[in-house]
Amino acid sequence: MSRSLGALLRPRSIALIGATERSIWSNAAHRNLTSFGYSGKVYLVNRNAGSVYGQPVYVSASAIGEPVDLALLMVPVAGVLEALDDLQAAGIANAVMLTSGFAELGEEGAKLQAALHERAAAHGIALLGPNCLGFINYIDKAPVWTLAPRPQGHFGSLAIISQSGATAALISYFAQQQGLALSYLVSTGNEVDVDIAQVLDFMVDEPNTKAIALFIETVRDANAFARAAERALAAGKPVVVLKVGASEITAKAAQAHTGALVGDDRVFEAACRRLGLIRVASIEDLVVTCDLLQQLGEVGEGGLGLVSLSGGICEIAADRASHVGLPLAELSSNTVQRLRDALPGFGTPHNPLDVTGGAMLKPEIFEKSIHGLGQEPNIAAVVTVFDVPTDESNDGEFARNALAHIGNALREIPVPGLVISHSVRPVTERSREIIHQAGIAYLGCGVDFGMAALSRLFAWSARRRKGIATKETVTQANVRPDSERSTLAYLASHAVPVVPAQLVHSAVEAVDAARRIGESVALKVASRNIAHKTDIGGVKLNVLGDQAVAQAFLSISESVRQARPDAEVEGLVVSPMRGKGVELFVGTLRDAQWGPVLVVGLGGIWVEALQDTSLRLLPVKAEDVLEQLSELRASKLLDGFRGAPAVDRQALAEIIAKIGNAALALGPELVSLEINPLWSDGERIEALDALAIWDSKPEGEAL
Amino acid sequence: MSRSLGALLRPRSIALIGATERSIWSNAAHRNLTSFGYSGKVYLVNRNAGSVYGQPVYVSASAIGEPVDLALLMVPVAGVLEALDDLQAAGIANAVMLTSGFAELGEEGAKLQAALHERAAAHGIALLGPNCLGFINYIDKAPVWTLAPRPQGHFGSLAIISQSGATAALISYFAQQQGLALSYLVSTGNEVDVDIAQVLDFMVDEPNTKAIALFIETVRDANAFARAAERALAAGKPVVVLKVGASEITAKAAQAHTGALVGDDRVFEAACRRLGLIRVASIEDLVVTCDLLQQLGEVGEGGLGLVSLSGGICEIAADRASHVGLPLAELSSNTVQRLRDALPGFGTPHNPLDVTGGAMLKPEIFEKSIHGLGQEPNIAAVVTVFDVPTDESNDGEFARNALAHIGNALREIPVPGLVISHSVRPVTERSREIIHQAGIAYLGCGVDFGMAALSRLFAWSARRRKGIATKETVTQANVRPDSERSTLAYLASHAVPVVPAQLVHSAVEAVDAARRIGESVALKVASRNIAHKTDIGGVKLNVLGDQAVAQAFLSISESVRQARPDAEVEGLVVSPMRGKGVELFVGTLRDAQWGPVLVVGLGGIWVEALQDTSLRLLPVKAEDVLEQLSELRASKLLDGFRGAPAVDRQALAEIIAKIGNAALALGPELVSLEINPLWSDGERIEALDALAIWDSKPEGEAL
Repeated sequence: MSRSLGALLRPRSIALIGATERSIWSNAAHRNLTSFGYSGKVYLVNRNAGSVYGQPVYVSASAIGEPVDLALLMVPVAGVLEALDDLQAAGIANAVMLTSGFAELGEEGAKLQAALHERAAAHGIALLGPNCLGFINYIDKAPVWTLAPRPQGHFGSLAIISQSGATAALISYFAQQQGLALSYLVSTGNEVDVDIAQVLDFMVDEPNTKAIALFIETVRDANAFARAAERALAAGKPVVVLKVGASEITAKAAQAHTGALVGDDRVFEAACRRLGLIRVASIEDLVVTCDLLQQLGEVGEGGLGLVSLSGGICEIAADRASHVGLPLAELSSNTVQRLRDALPGFGTPHNPLDVTGGAMLKPEIFEKSIHGLGQEPNIAAVVTVFDVPTDESNDGEFARNALAHIGNALREIPVPGLVISHSVRPVTERSREIIHQAGIAYLGCGVDFGMAALSRLFAWSARRRKGIATKETVTQANVRPDSERSTLAYLASHAVPVVPAQLVHSAVEAVDAARRIGESVALKVASRNIAHKTDIGGVKLNVLGDQAVAQAFLSISESVRQARPDAEVEGLVVSPMRGKGVELFVGTLRDAQWGPVLVVGLGGIWVEALQDTSLRLLPVKAEDVLEQLSELRASKLLDGFRGAPAVDRQALAEIIAKIGNAALALGPELVSLEINPLWSDGERIEALDALAIWDSKPEGEAL
Repeated sequence: MSRSLGALLRPRSIALIGATERSIWSNAAHRNLTSFGYSGKVYLVNRNAGSVYGQPVYVSASAIGEPVDLALLMVPVAGVLEALDDLQAAGIANAVMLTSGFAELGEEGAKLQAALHERAAAHGIALLGPNCLGFINYIDKAPVWTLAPRPQGHFGSLAIISQSGATAALISYFAQQQGLALSYLVSTGNEVDVDIAQVLDFMVDEPNTKAIALFIETVRDANAFARAAERALAAGKPVVVLKVGASEITAKAAQAHTGALVGDDRVFEAACRRLGLIRVASIEDLVVTCDLLQQLGEVGEGGLGLVSLSGGICEIAADRASHVGLPLAELSSNTVQRLRDALPGFGTPHNPLDVTGGAMLKPEIFEKSIHGLGQEPNIAAVVTVFDVPTDESNDGEFARNALAHIGNALREIPVPGLVISHSVRPVTERSREIIHQAGIAYLGCGVDFGMAALSRLFAWSARRRKGIATKETVTQANVRPDSERSTLAYLASHAVPVVPAQLVHSAVEAVDAARRIGESVALKVASRNIAHKTDIGGVKLNVLGDQAVAQAFLSISESVRQARPDAEVEGLVVSPMRGKGVELFVGTLRDAQWGPVLVVGLGGIWVEALQDTSLRLLPVKAEDVLEQLSELRASKLLDGFRGAPAVDRQALAEIIAKIGNAALALGPELVSLEINPLWSDGERIEALDALAIWDSKPEGEAL
């Protein structure tokens, strides 16, 4: 897993196995090597001998007789195993396999794929594919790619990694149309060996790559993927992910109650939140977000400052910013004064800032205004909306002049500055020349995609500032609580406040305990064998008075005896009743791929009927839980409702984080830990009930 | 209001008032007339005499001495009134005013604008502006426009109407980049006279215009706007609206409780829903949606069929379609069989349909597959995702060949067919040539914007099928219910089921009434003077037994006497208590612009704390209310929860529509009618409480 992909992705010599002029794939691969000016040696292999592309072929790889770094396998599916044997004989340790007809065809294909995996492993061959289109290393001018790529004059800083080959190509076309040059384009196909996590890991260390775009259908190795993503976040290298499957109503058989609330996609979303992966939903979003992050880097705390020549655009941008949760900075009075000086008489100092049509006459208004705005301490970045010309039809003197002024100001202000276009438009060679002249960062993405990408930049920067809670801080517990009582006691040992409870064994003891509590009490049967106490009459709530308490004790004891004569009963638990307050649901579940997940929701109807929950991978920090609380649709209810006091969100978040970490400490055999409810009445917070569910057959997980 | 704008927007002669070579606006206006090849006569007016643009000028409009259709006023703000007098003297009845410095500057400017309005009206001059950039009539090659527009070879079928001039221009640039030609471009500015509603109305009848794009900051005449929109919907001419202000937290002082839940923007949204206006949030969405609708027209019932060369794109498109609520059609077994025959062996018959890389080798797979898919009865339209080349760098044989096959199939299938690009890309002259050759409808909008636009096309088509509830069907009522009792009685007279209630005047009568009911009852004071009964002890709930009922009667009577000795008390009302069930909030409010609005929500916490409500302009049909119910975040609770029976949504919708119409029948003095709760327990639905609030000073409204 820790092997380097350098020999695969930076080959000094390449053999095309199955080279033939009758295949469009072979033709493309060969043409690309020529048109890129690949400087290494290229060998053509075809078992039929003769010559291809005017060059003599070898009948096998082993016939080459020289060391070769990489083979591109374009052989029929029936010949793939034999081809690997040939590579081994030739001493070729890296291969890309175009051939399809494996797991994507079902059962039979999956068997063949397993055999392929085994053979490659036995031969120690690093294999990209099968069912992939290969890769292009733009830096070393090494294309091992079986489609015709668009011309790209120089290498860039965007790496695209995609499980789908065609989609990889389509992403690259849009990136190049938007003036964004690539460093690498890698399609991983069926990932029998090299997977997206390994390529991601490689790109984290690839010095020319500043942003990484991923297209994912499935994550095969969540552990490795998470490690690579964490490294990328630590390195400040943004990873933007387009993952499909958000619409699948995945009916997942979950052992614990919370499982039913959670689709796979929500867990992946939770993983993204934890790992600082930036998730997007379209090719344009993917490319634009990468472009923004690689151009602007990280931003500090604060809001956006926005400048436009059009009041209408200011309004559209403000609406879009609000829609995606991107804050526009409030201006302090100093800034307002500076802007008053910069603007024409009929301009209004405001953010977003309309520099008015006056800037058509005097483009220096742009410069002064941006300068004034950029000094505002509440502002983390300044965006000016302006179109960079694409060709002679729109390349006028005004645009070049205005961009020069905009560029002057954006370079001088103390925060990152950027120009974005009004709507989506290409970034042509001519645009690049103008951009260079003006010395600006520019995105031809339009206000709609732009505001969305900026919101992600702000969120990613915040994630970087906050850091990730690490699993190393969690010490494994040596207990296995399996009843309400023992689970609450375990939580209490992790500094989670729990409702007081006394174990009683007789009606007399129960009355005694209730008297000491001095208010209405709850009585519940205590038994590790009984998970659903209410269903069998094992619970009585709101019990007040000696007689009622004694009756409740007897009634519960009798019900339990009849319903579960087999159960080992410790006794009954007597606790004070808690009043109205807010009831939260806090649970953990174990995702087969991603491991333990924390689920937070408001109790009862919200969780059960409306599935209003927020998920995070464990471990979490209190800051993460604060975010979760704010994501709930019913979040407002925490701020006090119908005279109920507001909940102390900070205290609540800290307690929930403790619950999450307590669950994590129970190890991989814990299926779920459920606190329902976690009750809160203003500042008082208590776990009222808890349930731990265990599995005796733990699966391998990301712990 | 019913005047025609023909003379303004189709001028046969134009006077440029304030023509001077020192103004970029004047220069642009003059250059445009020349470059468009305007065939009418152009007069230049400048009070300083001499010559401008190599042509002698008139010192005033009245000095022209010939009839002129239209004047473009580019005069300083101080001279605008005088300029209007000059127009009157010259007999010029139509003017466009570029000049700014009016209401947009606050109080002083607003006064001047009022004077302008008065003067124009006195002179009978139709005035577009002030503070606008003018308009371009592409059909008659008549530009009265003070910026440099992009060249457009021929006129098209898109009319853009915008209150912001710069935004109008920016919308037109994006439209033209996407290959969409305009019929009209109109900026209305401050709308002192001609407003967006009038221009919209004009475009409904303009025969070359197939789609209308609006950019709106504020609607000044909601009545006229609504009438024009209704005419457009009836004519099948789509109107797409980009209205800003969605993010404003408008603190509106509302007299009724429901008012507090509703921001202005939500009312506009409700107006759009009623009028079939298609609302969008960005320039790209605006243009793409217009383009789609003008190319494809209306679609029938059913889902989308989607075809792509890339499995990844199929997945991305399916996720986006799900996100925007666009249904993908399920395939019947016949279609599956047809597709099995059409696809290569490793293809899967499915919607979205991945024709696989096999179509790279055999583009006829596209043709067969689309043909097979298009026969599916569940499909209302077929979209193929494919890029039309833009220039020689991507104009290969494969693309042209594939597009020919795609075009063949799309033309033959019985439902509308369309090609959209993978991501946003321009539609160049070369693209248009290829599109023409292939005979396809094409949008270079990409899958993201494309799926969103398609969902709007489907919604608009459904709106057209459903039709609008008309106000003509509502008969005005001659009553003015002002107490709970009289309001419930009024609702009952409109066939709204209400809880049985008996008015009692003594404890004995109360006990009698309760005995007849035979279960727990509610007692409430009945008085038109007491709106908030609970607050003064005027309500007792869940009362059971003779003694308790008698006590409740006395207690309420005493409380009311002490709290409101002034109130006229009719007596007390005794009603049966209703059990758990679902409680809805149904209210109406009166929006100052749009008139009566129906608000539907789930009762209690949802409405009060979470503002989970759905709005529609009145009147409504039951179908509209069904939509409202499905829009509620808590909508699922209607389907039964914790053993409660599911609510009969159809019956509920019919009753709520009756409530809405009953409110409408009460006329414009009704501020709000509130039913809280409308209770439902499975099939049984009853209004349990009602309150009507009246205003004695009705405002002019859209009724």
